[in-house]
Amino acid sequence: MAIGKTLWAIPEGYIPAQSTNGEDSRFVSHEAACLLNANDGDAHITITIYFADREPAGPYRVTVPARRTLHLRFNDMSEPETIPRDTPYSSVIESSLPIVVQHTRLDSRQAALALLSTMAYAAG
Amino acid sequence: MAIGKTLWAIPEGYIPAQSTNGEDSRFVSHEAACLLNANDGDAHITITIYFADREPAGPYRVTVPARRTLHLRFNDMSEPETIPRDTPYSSVIESSLPIVVQHTRLDSRQAALALLSTMAYAAG
Amino acid sequence: MAIGKTLWAIPEGYIPAQSTNGEDSRFVSHEAACLLNANDGDAHITITIYFADREPAGPYRVTVPARRTLHLRFNDMSEPETIPRDTPYSSVIESSLPIVVQHTRLDSRQAALALLSTMAYAAG
Amino acid sequence: MAIGKTLWAIPEGYIPAQSTNGEDSRFVSHEAACLLNANDGDAHITITIYFADREPAGPYRVTVPARRTLHLRFNDMSEPETIPRDTPYSSVIESSLPIVVQHTRLDSRQAALALLSTMAYAAG
Repeated sequence: MAIGKTLWAIPEGYIPAQSTNGEDSRFVSHEAACLLNANDGDAHITITIYFADREPAGPYRVTVPARRTLHLRFNDMSEPETIPRDTPYSSVIESSLPIVVQHTRLDSRQAALALLSTMAYAAG
Repeated sequence: MAIGKTLWAIPEGYIPAQSTNGEDSRFVSHEAACLLNANDGDAHITITIYFADREPAGPYRVTVPARRTLHLRFNDMSEPETIPRDTPYSSVIESSLPIVVQHTRLDSRQAALALLSTMAYAAG
Repeated sequence: MAIGKTLWAIPEGYIPAQSTNGEDSRFVSHEAACLLNANDGDAHITITIYFADREPAGPYRVTVPARRTLHLRFNDMSEPETIPRDTPYSSVIESSLPIVVQHTRLDSRQAALALLSTMAYAAG
Repeated sequence: MAIGKTLWAIPEGYIPAQSTNGEDSRFVSHEAACLLNANDGDAHITITIYFADREPAGPYRVTVPARRTLHLRFNDMSEPETIPRDTPYSSVIESSLPIVVQHTRLDSRQAALALLSTMAYAAG
């Protein structure tokens, strides 16, 4: 089933440097792009990261298999370079097949965690 | 009044396994799809759940009566199978009539609850 | 400046019955529809509330003057009837002029408040 | 790469007057518009602020350079006037080139921070 678009943008991006209970990976402060590929073929995805004061980083590459979801943590992206903490960024996500993208942050810098989420912007 | 679309997607999905004050159902960590049927007829809805590492689950079936809303907790969906906790998933929601879908999570794993919400993606 | 649409829907709706620091109105658990009227004329707005198990309530009527915003708390809506607490609902918002609608909840049931927000669904 | 629209609206706006740990700028209660300019040219942006009970303020002007993001805190906007705290407002954002806009609030009035975020409304 073809659902979604092939070009997405997330203007908000910020990985907090601190965590409470960070020894448990579930509670590490993190930011994720949730990528749904409802197609019957694999989606090949390219991500570019934009910053306030330097040229963009990337391309980062990931594949979401057919009929699968990937909750990709920006924290874990390391090639071609890691994303700095406590630094504002934006992301643009391009896919070889239509996908749907949702943005989520878990912030556990203080004793009780906070969450935000929004559908990404479907650009085309 | 016909409001909405018949195909919706929610890439983010995650039911936390723990809760604070979980003996009170209002404070159980949960994830919900809020389904508004503003039509004068019943909406017959089918939900498919996508995972990271296995084939999709479903179809789950639910009916929202004419001129009613249903705040459906993914926690409570049990046929054809329950949705595992602490596991990333996505959902696709198809309806026989136009509906509007909003996604909400209440996370009470830590002492103070956290909330997120976003309109689902209207795919068609 | 004409910005927005004349028909909006918010499937999620829930006014928590409890609050922490509720003697300060800013911290009362509440749900709001933020209504932006960027036009040079007044926007006459009608709201209908949908429930899980009864016929809809309304119409509720409110006017947003030209070039003004109104952050309308559902808590304060009383004509033709108040909206019950701890009860799932949805809302449909119709306007005589294009407006933009955003949905926000502040939940202070537990010691630290939680927030959610999303743009409403622009139906037409 | 041209991504986005040139006219955006954010109906929700509210800068809390208090903060916990406010001596650290990261934890000051704040509201931000995250502006992504993926173009190869600078985006010249004009912001108008709408209130409940007075004429709009602005225009506020900011430039986002080519291939950059700006996470603009409404707290820091001072020309032609500062935005009052604890006061509901809305914003309209116009750009000379297509951009993407996301709205975020960090509320640290209580001991644990709360977050909200949503994509802004793409008006044209």
